[in-house]
Amino acid sequence: MTGYRAEKDQLLRRLRRVEGQIRGLQRMVDTDTYCIDTLTQVSAATKALQSVALQLLDSHLAHCVHDAIAGGGTEADLKVAEATQAIARLMRT
Amino acid sequence: MTGYRAEKDQLLRRLRRVEGQIRGLQRMVDTDTYCIDTLTQVSAATKALQSVALQLLDSHLAHCVHDAIAGGGTEADLKVAEATQAIARLMRT
Amino acid sequence: MTGYRAEKDQLLRRLRRVEGQIRGLQRMVDTDTYCIDTLTQVSAATKALQSVALQLLDSHLAHCVHDAIAGGGTEADLKVAEATQAIARLMRT
Amino acid sequence: MTGYRAEKDQLLRRLRRVEGQIRGLQRMVDTDTYCIDTLTQVSAATKALQSVALQLLDSHLAHCVHDAIAGGGTEADLKVAEATQAIARLMRT
Repeated sequence: MTGYRAEKDQLLRRLRRVEGQIRGLQRMVDTDTYCIDTLTQVSAATKALQSVALQLLDSHLAHCVHDAIAGGGTEADLKVAEATQAIARLMRT
Repeated sequence: MTGYRAEKDQLLRRLRRVEGQIRGLQRMVDTDTYCIDTLTQVSAATKALQSVALQLLDSHLAHCVHDAIAGGGTEADLKVAEATQAIARLMRT
Repeated sequence: MTGYRAEKDQLLRRLRRVEGQIRGLQRMVDTDTYCIDTLTQVSAATKALQSVALQLLDSHLAHCVHDAIAGGGTEADLKVAEATQAIARLMRT
Repeated sequence: MTGYRAEKDQLLRRLRRVEGQIRGLQRMVDTDTYCIDTLTQVSAATKALQSVALQLLDSHLAHCVHDAIAGGGTEADLKVAEATQAIARLMRT
């Protein structure tokens, strides 16, 4: 059902680290940290989130899209179109 | 010292909402949510983080950079160079 | 060999339009157009280039990656890894 | 009127280089270059365009926004809001 089954623990660790970065940002804002330093931390958290996205996408292509294509039929085309739309959403953020 | 003083509560609310999105993502991964739905949520959290960045940047320009320029001297040039570098980091993520 | 064979004419039309946008930008700079208006045109050209990227990626997945998977073997894994790396490069720009 | 007056020649050289990259892309598509190599060149052209954007933005802040603030009045607030909107457009592409 999901492509990331084998990487679940790693993904959860990464997401917990992002959660820590977001909480760190709240502390920075709460203690009046200089705007530019806060922005640097926002960039770091955004980069970490995008790495999670890339890992999800990679495992999705390697498993879900892969299996749909190997299985043949029209399912494969739907999966490719769906993946392209997800990539478009990621590129626009 | 910080440009976002007047918007601190709003920024903290936004960051708590992003934290909620990141925790939501952990639940999604933990319950084996379909990759594409998880990716859609990653895009939403990234977009929310970038809105926080834009608000920080806007208040930084309107206050810190503004005051440095209004105060005159070389401080103004340093502030503009620093802001451009922060924008470059945001555009590259 | 290429996934975009059937869409070659459309891709070339799009790229010629981007070339026109870049030449338009040169005229804007040459005639001292206001910075913000020039920046708006840079955003438009960047968006157009990213649409070209998405079309190339979509046809690459639908043809090259598809055929490698349907053909079986280790070629499929290489193609997926290569596609993920290309997506990572696009997301970082 | 424009912030980039002193950098006009450099900006025009950069834009002519981007134009060369776009024409190179047309040749790549025309000669059926492998999708991934074409995508790498799209990423390079996008990165070059974003550097042009950053240079325009930097000189806009250092001159147009600077002068509006130094001149005092409500013009300064308008210039900052306008710059933030331009940055938002760049971050969304």
